[in-house]
Parts: sequence; structure tokens; C-alpha cells
Amino acid sequence: MDPANLPAGFRYSALYAGIRKVARPDLALIVSEVEAAAAGVFTTNLVQAAPVRLTRRNLAATGGRARAVLVNAGNANCATRTGDKVALATSRALAKLLKVPAPQVLPSSTGVIGVELNPALITDALPALVEGLSTDRFNDAADAILTTDTVSKTACVEQTGFRVAGLTKGSGMIHPHMATTLAFVVTDAAIAPAELQRALRQAVALSYNRLSVDGDMSTNDTLLVLANGASGVKITASNRAQFQRALNEVCQSLARQIARDGEGAKKFIEIRVEGARSTQDAVRIARAIANSNLTKTAIAGSDPNWGRILCAAGYAGAIFDPSKTDIWLQGVPVCRRGLAADYDELALSQKLDAPDCSIRVRLGEKGSGTATFWTCDLTHDYITINASYRT
Amino acid sequence: MDPANLPAGFRYSALYAGIRKVARPDLALIVSEVEAAAAGVFTTNLVQAAPVRLTRRNLAATGGRARAVLVNAGNANCATRTGDKVALATSRALAKLLKVPAPQVLPSSTGVIGVELNPALITDALPALVEGLSTDRFNDAADAILTTDTVSKTACVEQTGFRVAGLTKGSGMIHPHMATTLAFVVTDAAIAPAELQRALRQAVALSYNRLSVDGDMSTNDTLLVLANGASGVKITASNRAQFQRALNEVCQSLARQIARDGEGAKKFIEIRVEGARSTQDAVRIARAIANSNLTKTAIAGSDPNWGRILCAAGYAGAIFDPSKTDIWLQGVPVCRRGLAADYDELALSQKLDAPDCSIRVRLGEKGSGTATFWTCDLTHDYITINASYRT
Repeated sequence: MDPANLPAGFRYSALYAGIRKVARPDLALIVSEVEAAAAGVFTTNLVQAAPVRLTRRNLAATGGRARAVLVNAGNANCATRTGDKVALATSRALAKLLKVPAPQVLPSSTGVIGVELNPALITDALPALVEGLSTDRFNDAADAILTTDTVSKTACVEQTGFRVAGLTKGSGMIHPHMATTLAFVVTDAAIAPAELQRALRQAVALSYNRLSVDGDMSTNDTLLVLANGASGVKITASNRAQFQRALNEVCQSLARQIARDGEGAKKFIEIRVEGARSTQDAVRIARAIANSNLTKTAIAGSDPNWGRILCAAGYAGAIFDPSKTDIWLQGVPVCRRGLAADYDELALSQKLDAPDCSIRVRLGEKGSGTATFWTCDLTHDYITINASYRT
Repeated sequence: MDPANLPAGFRYSALYAGIRKVARPDLALIVSEVEAAAAGVFTTNLVQAAPVRLTRRNLAATGGRARAVLVNAGNANCATRTGDKVALATSRALAKLLKVPAPQVLPSSTGVIGVELNPALITDALPALVEGLSTDRFNDAADAILTTDTVSKTACVEQTGFRVAGLTKGSGMIHPHMATTLAFVVTDAAIAPAELQRALRQAVALSYNRLSVDGDMSTNDTLLVLANGASGVKITASNRAQFQRALNEVCQSLARQIARDGEGAKKFIEIRVEGARSTQDAVRIARAIANSNLTKTAIAGSDPNWGRILCAAGYAGAIFDPSKTDIWLQGVPVCRRGLAADYDELALSQKLDAPDCSIRVRLGEKGSGTATFWTCDLTHDYITINASYRT
């Protein structure tokens, strides 16, 4: 990400605080020069990490105003004795250094669950972290929040007069129905907190909630957006659609990058469902296909086994007529009206060797329900990574 | 299975009809000497194979009476142009040979979806299949219905005066919420069809619906039970509980055998949830843990990563207080009141190398909801098997 393209009025920092075992930056900071409107969506898991609870509380207390986001990787600060205290102490220490009200610091964590997080690791590192703040260290912050990710994930969109940029992490324990994993979006547009929250919900519905790597929903999922108005462009009725489009685009780009970097993934899979009775039905079917281990292993093996896709659609909980269903793989028709289409198995298998795979399902229902959903293939490496995550 | 322990009045047969590529028996037959009460539960997938539809229709037409079950492996007879015709023609041909009414033959298929099944392969084999019927070929029938299974799966229970025996197949595409995969249970007890159906529903709720290998629900799932009364023992109020217990025991044994032989599985996992608000909540939590790829890969790697178990419980859709939750692995407390317990990580990891793993979750809710659920670990071999199933 070229710093010249970033929204105005934000600074970033990152360093290694010793939270993760390997000496790789694990603490990141995003600061807005002025008080920003802030909105967030969070995991719907009943088990929520301490920083998730505190950030929610802070957003409620401030009415959606924030100055800083403090993120650590390497420890989820979840299901620990001291979790709440650690989240509170570290964000308060940062607020003091930045001379901002404590509830305007939003903490966020990712990493292993159930291991106590030593707050001194963070508080001792804060002076250097603040010292390192710079407008051109966005990429450093993006790198510091990664865990099993193999690449850093950022996105930026420019609109007339304002910009939206985001960074995210995530590779496993990725499942929709919430804001998946960690993501932080900044914009220099000026927008009221309530309106920002509405726009964020809409963007998440079309991005992070259309994403699954392995069907496991994390305890720490957080997506925050800060809008500091530094561009001088106010979001009103006349440019609201433009803002929404920019926010959607950044969130969708980030979500796609997560699917592409799914744990062990060799292939990115885009699933498109059309002709459903409703959007909800289309999403249900797309999600069932995205979570089908059998579909994902078939794609890993470049096997055009469309029966598994039709089968997954069938148990999705949506109503449709299988005998009116068409399926394409890589644009090649494999199933017509619920039956095998005439296609060249070998040629298609070779096409499925590509790093980008597309599954298109067209239902013959009366209705215009469509959905796009992203996932990845399921490979040996997913097993290797997750059978030894903590060792 | 020793034929001497089997219910009276049934004969079995099996042979290779050329339906699957490898020359291994793929056609099985179970015949009751006299008309038997019959009951069945089937996949709830919207996409249903032709034999599932025909067997349902036959059971409705006869009011739950049957003489024979005809099963093929190697082809699911699902999502094919000729599916209904093939199911009808083959079961009619068998009815003619056996001189029984056509609706008293119940067809069932398993194998690849979307490939036309040549009915001549079956009809040509039927005379030899009928010729081969014998009271002592139960095990041959059990072998003939297997697909990716590595072992044959049978169970038998004797009660005062009657017996219940079952055979099943299944290794992948195994997910509860229905009668998973194929299973056939025979008993020489005398029981009315409606009562048999009720008993079957109860047994399935506690066995096949407590089982998951990979979260994928098949299009062909069928569990049939035939009761021919050959023992002379009538099921009445006085021995109904005894019959239910025997049926539960056979179905649970078969379900456990499927989990143990899950595709690529090295370890059998029994999940026990206690202290939930309701049985439904306990089942929800147990199912979420059983379907968590992250939990299953952790067990594969002998990693006592209880955070993933608590996390899966949290997204199950049941209400509970994480801070009142205890978790045991192999009987060792790993999580007390939502926090890490004091345990020896290395010693527990070695215990998790065993082929049988137990996960026990005790919620602190007011209520007596409990559930036992079976699954297996997720290994490299699952990927290998399913990336190349058709090649």
C-alpha cells in the first residue's frame, strides 16, 4: 500500500513486544489525529474475548467516538483470569500517553485462547510504539496483526475527495455470521457515528459475512472503522452511495484476501448463486457449499465432482427444485437441470488446477435472490497447520 | 458376526455385479422369510436419490410391510436421467423372482452422484443373487454395501426371546439431522409397523443423529428396520422398553463404528455434554464441537487445545455461561469455570495419542440436558481420500 494513497489524518505504528514466540512484530497502533466517528461489528460467539467486550463498552460510552485502536497478535486475551484487567490496563496506559479519554482507545487481540496475557509486555512497549507513529507505517501495522496468515492484507479506495483504507488478518477459524476475524478500516470522510455504523453493517453483510475458511467462528472477531473527516468531505445524501460503495469495496477486497490466504489453501474459490427465491436463500446455499469439506477437498484435487455441490445445496435449508438447477465450474456447464451435463472431464480438471476457481449455481426459482461467497480449498496443509498450532 | 446369534427368519446374499470399478461385491440382498413390519428414516436433504423416493413410496403404499431390501454400492442412483426407472425396474425384477408384491421390495443405493446406473448390471445379477441367499451370509451383505469404509460394520443384541441385528456403511458425507448413510436392521420380534416406526425414530435420535464425520449430509441416507416376528415374541407394553433398548443399542453400536471408520480417521472421539438447559442445547453444543474442523485437527495432533472446544460451544446457538463451564480431555480437567485448569500438557498430549479420545463438557446451567455425540479426528488422509474420490 502506497502511503500517498491513504486517508489523511491517521498515523500508524508497530513493533515486537514479545507476545508471540517468534520475534516478529505483534503490537500495532492506529491513531487518528482528531477524534473520529467510530463503528464496529463483533463476533456473535457466546464466548467473547475481553478486548471485544471492552471495545463494545467503549463505543457505547462514547456514542461512537475514538482516537486509537491498539491491536496485539499472539494472544487472544480470551478465557483468561486477568483478561478484562489486561484489556483495561493496557488501553488506559495508551490513553494516558496519547492524552486522550480512556474510552477512546479501542483494544483488539488475536492469537491463542486460554493463555494469560502479561500486560507489562504491552505497557512497557507503549512509549516506543507511540514514538514510532507515522503516516507511512500503515503496512507495518498490517504486518503486525497477522498470525497464521502468509501474506499481509490491505485495501484502499479513493473517491471524489475522500479515501477509505483497510487492513485485516485471518486465515483459519473463519466463518461468516459476524464480522470475521480482525479488520480495521480508516477513512478521512466526515460522517456521523450512527450513519457510519449503518454503512458498516451493510458492507459487512456483503463482505465478511460472505466468507468462510473452515466454519469455525472466532471469539475475537472485530471489524472497526474510524472516520476522522480530515478530507473535509462530509457524507450527505448526495455522496452517501459513493461512500457505501467505497466501504463495500474495501471490505470485500479484504474478505477475498482472507479466503485466498485460508490456512493451507492452494486455491481461492468464488461461489455465485443465482435465481434463488430470496437473497437469504441464495446466501444459505452459497454458505453450505463454502462450508462443505467434500466440495473443498474435491476442488483441492481438481475433481469436477458437481454432485457434492448439488448435495450441499440440498441440505442448506433453502427451498428449490433440484431438477431446475444448473451448475458451472470454471464457466464450464457440469450440471443442467439437476443432471450431468456433457463436458470434457479431463479438460475441466486441468482448468481446476488454476489458483482461482469459480462455482456458479443457477436455481430455476421464481425470484431474483443472488449471492457471492468466498472460500478456499481444503488441503493437507490445513491439517498440518492446525494439528500443531500451539507446538 | 456369528450367524448363530442372528434373528430368525432372514436370509442374506451378496455378489459383484460390476457396478463399482474394483471387483469387490457391490450388490446385497436381505430377505425375510415372511412378510415383515418395516419402518424407515431417510435423508432430509432436498436432493434425494431415486431409491430413497421409491422406498418411501413403497412403505407408504404397503402401510409398512416388506419382504426384501436390495442395496447396491458404487453408484448412488442420484441426479441421473434414468434414476426412477432404474430403481423401479430393478426392484420389480427382484419382486418377480421372489414372487412377492413389488412394493415389498425396498431399494437402496450408495456411491457416486450424477452418473447413470445401468439397470442391466443389477437385473442380470439378480438370479445368482437370489440363488445365493442363505441365513449365514449376513457378513457378506455387510461387506457388499461398503464404499470408502475400511472395515465392515455390524451389531447384534439378544433379548429374552428375540434378537436385533444391524449392518451399516459410511465413512464420509456423514452428518446428523437424519438417518445418516445406509443402515439395515433386522429383528425377529413381532411388532406393528407404526410402533416399529416410533421405536426407530427414538433409536435414531440417540444414535445416527448423534454422529458426524464431516458435516456433509448425503442424498441417499436410509435406515430401514424389518421385524418379521419369527421369534414368536410379540412386543407389548411389558417388553416394549426391552425392545427399544435393544434397537437403541444396535443403532448406537453401528453409529459408533461409522465414526471410528470416518474417512482418514485415526481416532474415535466421544463428546459428552452435561448440565445444559435442555437436551436440545446439549445436542447443539456437542454437534458444534463434533463439526469443528479446528477441534478435530487438534485431536489429530494430540494437542489439548481446549480453547477451540469452548469456542465451538460458544457458537453452537445454545445459551450458557462460559465462566461456569468445565472441560475434560481424556478425563483430565483442562478448563475450570471457563479458564485454564492446571494440567500437565505433555502428559495429556501423550494420552491423546490413544485411538479413543473423550471430550467432556460440563455447563453450569440449571437443567439436566445431556448428550453423547460421536465423531473422529480430521487428518491428512481425509483430504487424500476426498481430493481423489472419483479418480
